[in-house]
Amino acid sequence: MASNSFGQIFKITTFGESHGKAIGVVIDGCPAGIEIDILDIQKELDKRKPGLSQYTSPRKEPDQVKILSGVTEGLSTGAPIALLVENRDADSSKYENIKDIYRPGHANFSYLQKYGIFDHRGGGRASARETVVRVAAGAIAKKLIEPITIRAWVDEVGGEKDQEAIEHLLEEVIKDGDSVGACISCEIENLMPGLGDPIYEKLEMKLAAAMLSIPATKGIEFGNGFQSSKLRGSENNDLFEVNEGEKVSFTSNHHGGILAGISTGENIYFRVAFKHTSSIKIPQKSVNQMGEEVVFTLPEGSRHDPCVALRAPPIVESMAALVIADCFLISSCSKKPKYVGLVN
Amino acid sequence: MASNSFGQIFKITTFGESHGKAIGVVIDGCPAGIEIDILDIQKELDKRKPGLSQYTSPRKEPDQVKILSGVTEGLSTGAPIALLVENRDADSSKYENIKDIYRPGHANFSYLQKYGIFDHRGGGRASARETVVRVAAGAIAKKLIEPITIRAWVDEVGGEKDQEAIEHLLEEVIKDGDSVGACISCEIENLMPGLGDPIYEKLEMKLAAAMLSIPATKGIEFGNGFQSSKLRGSENNDLFEVNEGEKVSFTSNHHGGILAGISTGENIYFRVAFKHTSSIKIPQKSVNQMGEEVVFTLPEGSRHDPCVALRAPPIVESMAALVIADCFLISSCSKKPKYVGLVN
Amino acid sequence: MASNSFGQIFKITTFGESHGKAIGVVIDGCPAGIEIDILDIQKELDKRKPGLSQYTSPRKEPDQVKILSGVTEGLSTGAPIALLVENRDADSSKYENIKDIYRPGHANFSYLQKYGIFDHRGGGRASARETVVRVAAGAIAKKLIEPITIRAWVDEVGGEKDQEAIEHLLEEVIKDGDSVGACISCEIENLMPGLGDPIYEKLEMKLAAAMLSIPATKGIEFGNGFQSSKLRGSENNDLFEVNEGEKVSFTSNHHGGILAGISTGENIYFRVAFKHTSSIKIPQKSVNQMGEEVVFTLPEGSRHDPCVALRAPPIVESMAALVIADCFLISSCSKKPKYVGLVN
Amino acid sequence: MASNSFGQIFKITTFGESHGKAIGVVIDGCPAGIEIDILDIQKELDKRKPGLSQYTSPRKEPDQVKILSGVTEGLSTGAPIALLVENRDADSSKYENIKDIYRPGHANFSYLQKYGIFDHRGGGRASARETVVRVAAGAIAKKLIEPITIRAWVDEVGGEKDQEAIEHLLEEVIKDGDSVGACISCEIENLMPGLGDPIYEKLEMKLAAAMLSIPATKGIEFGNGFQSSKLRGSENNDLFEVNEGEKVSFTSNHHGGILAGISTGENIYFRVAFKHTSSIKIPQKSVNQMGEEVVFTLPEGSRHDPCVALRAPPIVESMAALVIADCFLISSCSKKPKYVGLVN
Repeated sequence: MASNSFGQIFKITTFGESHGKAIGVVIDGCPAGIEIDILDIQKELDKRKPGLSQYTSPRKEPDQVKILSGVTEGLSTGAPIALLVENRDADSSKYENIKDIYRPGHANFSYLQKYGIFDHRGGGRASARETVVRVAAGAIAKKLIEPITIRAWVDEVGGEKDQEAIEHLLEEVIKDGDSVGACISCEIENLMPGLGDPIYEKLEMKLAAAMLSIPATKGIEFGNGFQSSKLRGSENNDLFEVNEGEKVSFTSNHHGGILAGISTGENIYFRVAFKHTSSIKIPQKSVNQMGEEVVFTLPEGSRHDPCVALRAPPIVESMAALVIADCFLISSCSKKPKYVGLVN
Repeated sequence: MASNSFGQIFKITTFGESHGKAIGVVIDGCPAGIEIDILDIQKELDKRKPGLSQYTSPRKEPDQVKILSGVTEGLSTGAPIALLVENRDADSSKYENIKDIYRPGHANFSYLQKYGIFDHRGGGRASARETVVRVAAGAIAKKLIEPITIRAWVDEVGGEKDQEAIEHLLEEVIKDGDSVGACISCEIENLMPGLGDPIYEKLEMKLAAAMLSIPATKGIEFGNGFQSSKLRGSENNDLFEVNEGEKVSFTSNHHGGILAGISTGENIYFRVAFKHTSSIKIPQKSVNQMGEEVVFTLPEGSRHDPCVALRAPPIVESMAALVIADCFLISSCSKKPKYVGLVN
Repeated sequence: MASNSFGQIFKITTFGESHGKAIGVVIDGCPAGIEIDILDIQKELDKRKPGLSQYTSPRKEPDQVKILSGVTEGLSTGAPIALLVENRDADSSKYENIKDIYRPGHANFSYLQKYGIFDHRGGGRASARETVVRVAAGAIAKKLIEPITIRAWVDEVGGEKDQEAIEHLLEEVIKDGDSVGACISCEIENLMPGLGDPIYEKLEMKLAAAMLSIPATKGIEFGNGFQSSKLRGSENNDLFEVNEGEKVSFTSNHHGGILAGISTGENIYFRVAFKHTSSIKIPQKSVNQMGEEVVFTLPEGSRHDPCVALRAPPIVESMAALVIADCFLISSCSKKPKYVGLVN
Repeated sequence: MASNSFGQIFKITTFGESHGKAIGVVIDGCPAGIEIDILDIQKELDKRKPGLSQYTSPRKEPDQVKILSGVTEGLSTGAPIALLVENRDADSSKYENIKDIYRPGHANFSYLQKYGIFDHRGGGRASARETVVRVAAGAIAKKLIEPITIRAWVDEVGGEKDQEAIEHLLEEVIKDGDSVGACISCEIENLMPGLGDPIYEKLEMKLAAAMLSIPATKGIEFGNGFQSSKLRGSENNDLFEVNEGEKVSFTSNHHGGILAGISTGENIYFRVAFKHTSSIKIPQKSVNQMGEEVVFTLPEGSRHDPCVALRAPPIVESMAALVIADCFLISSCSKKPKYVGLVN
């Protein structure tokens, strides 16, 4: 089943395994005339090393992106834009010994059930490495939706919200060879109302699907989210007023910028729960494909991220940008287009 | 933009407004040979009046479903199955006075921004009434996926988990003319592993999209969900063991039955946050379409649900059934089908 | 497999069998604000009785269309538009005796192979009756694409092009209890250039798919079509010139209004081949589901069309209108939409 | 608008321009466990130089294909398969002088109307070079559908069917610097009945769309095709009989292997009309983007194919293979899949 595409009008298709030759993405549906500079894309890729980068995995990939098609003289042409990132640091020999063992929290058990075959090297297709090209595609989506801006940040690690407590926790986790979960918040600004479609193409549906496509995500909430399940209508409803510019506005934004699936013009706000990295240095009970109980230990020298979410903000931003770009293009279809005669 | 369909292989398309002539659904992609009894469908519709029904809105719709097509002699034929429920109790005259006012928490502001027109009577297309036909379609999906079973229940109202405290709270809320949010849990049992597809058709993506298509939903979490963002890998990873039947199994189910987007064979578990009903009997500050600040008061005699989620378990079950039915049909495409010669 | 929808943005889903309760269509993706008058739809349905109607089947259906949803005060709201036509003249008792016989040229053999079940009454889902609701949907598509116009006509019957020869032939065919094929031409005028998309969403692809969805079609050609396979480039290329209005134009239209999948602004012209009606009054050799050779004879009093294509021009027009409506809405996505702030 | 994908379950997405860095294809939805040998793919690519190759364009591309992903140890894994062919022989300097001129029969006029920008070098995205990767993808589709086989051949050139007359005509056309159209026939054998879906996913629809996506195609017909529009039901209906193996079979195959959109088990037969190559060495009247009338002359040393269809049989075969592969995978969805418990 084709399952590697995301989006309807502005659509990406990704390919490539963690330890294969390359990972790539085809962006199909980018309108013509968008300024695309490879440096802008590269800059987004480099952002995957965020403020807390001392705590992230040391995979040494230059992640140099190439534009294979769809751009000429700095402009998109309407043709599909293919972006390629070659894999270099892909020594998979150390995975040989563990290739038959079901890895706790990992993809190999469920993939094997489904396909009967699994490219185990570095997690194969299920690796977070696939997200590199999402960020590359997101860089182009961000250009398309200007001046709308998207910002994501780690707002909680292991239940801690204080920066100092977080750093302390991460150091402890690293020392223990363990890992820990985190939450990421995302805010979208300068949005127009009317994005998203009713019933089964609601903006929350698309954003939720986008976020839960990111490895290690376990939940999402919009606006007041789970908290709003505890509140009363009289506390949580956002009222209307006329603001100074004589425009209609909301007295608050508990709804998080979306009502009935359609953007209201308020900032969109949502929050995503990430579990811990599944790989830990602590030995774990498991079973191998021969059906024998074994102890699973991560191979010597394996890369190890104490908290996978630390790298996720650019991925969250990119997936959000893809959704907004798609809705932005779709939005022109809710009213009858102007009939235009011969253009030339 | 077409936005009233859900599913890929087992696909529904719904139509109809709250106060229009009828609401309906076309199920396209139901395999031939499924036993379909109108009484089974009717039974599911009747379940929309759950245990706490003394607290739900008294709309007097018999909700009698008709099968217009796709079934002959009690069996699906492979043709689209159209189900129709006529609207009867639809006195919309009382909405006349408030039709120009933006209703806090409701669809009319964002719909008007998008379409420039809004069928205000009873919430029009954005009404929860649309969910009636989802339940009807879900009844057929449930037949298709047997013996897989799906069960949803209200697990928390306004932050209260105790049945007595919930009843007390609801009575208070009704007395105040207010409303309150709630959470619904859902569990899927007897599932095979291998359902769902990697990357952008993950089972969580589809379930999250399904749930966030339900009016008033604000969030979803799978397995340990947001709690797993606070935990360590060593606490939250589910380990493997060989059980008595000499099958591989998990020592726990913190992951909620899905790993890397694909079912593991464990029960799927997720939880959905619903906000309160947006309509309350307490007057609220608002603005009308002429840009004037007004006080919005619900018309005399309007139906009023203190907690919209009380009616939602059958809807949650139905949307989950639609997702599982779709994945079940898709699952046969992950391996090469057997070549069969002339069948007759 | 869901297979009863057509179109991407302006999308129809049809349902209903020839001898079931009703046939219907859901139009999803019609923009808001289109003027929709039930009389316009009815008028198109009535056109299914064309100039040569004395030669068409006497099924006595009033074909009264009902609008169930999506239209309020004469305007589309952006919600799905459901149209329903009830079946009345559906005496299927006369089909009882032949229900187990494979009917030459008909759907029942291939449907039975696929589904193992067939609703034989009147051809079930495979009946031309399904096209009634295509015409109803086409009436709305035609409103959307104004001032673009579409005109289809029978240009050849049984190889004859002369009106008198055609009438003579039809009378002979009726007398023989036989049937005969025909060709239909279609021309689309007042079109803008730029409709259609490259590579796999070419305008010819969509029109070809649209036409070959009509029962009894066996081929399609665009512009000079099959004739252009016999010609040289120097004969068949359309050259460019500057016309009196100082606009670029073509010196001829051998290409039929489409180059590389995209409309050029010239009239679109194509031609569709229809085979004869499959049902004839002459006994035919066949086999029944028990595997016995039998002689198949149409039941006494069966309706019989000597030439199914005589009724097809409104269907051809409607399917073309659906394609053009879809491309028209899509066309706004090839360039970046204007960013608009808060609308109200 | 995303328009570079073809297929639903077995889905390809192509990218790349004639004179860009590379052309490529992502195959998404290939089941796991298919044996994929790069030599099989290369062999299909090499077939693009068919029997009449002395008459085809001398572009010197080695067309060496690389597999970037989705295959491990000779087997597909269920992950997307990306294939890349680098462009080498791409001297586009000779196109500089003609880049502003509308080229008769070419894409640049309609593309410019749509996008406002055109990558003119070698036809950019609209070039027949894009078809190279279709053939590569088709090679994999052919493996999937074994033992079904597909064979396409040139059956007529410029109206001539005799091999000697064709060669004579082609030599004359080359001498004149002109070009000529042709027809290609295609036959699919060893097919099971039941492929294709009713109404809007008919097998003819998909094959017609597939064929009309190939550059220079102007028409398609199935079975007796346009000829059946001249015949009577009594002549053209295929009757049923019981053959020696006591199986139901047809006495003839005028229908071309498809009835009501679904394969009957007979060979599928269709025929595609190709116009001449649009580029000819004879000067042609045209207009440039500044709106001036000019004479268009192909640059010195341009490659020139007298008959573009001579190279098309492998492309026709590949597109047919993609359609059949898709239908083959879909076919398992028409009946309820068997419920299977835990697999391991």
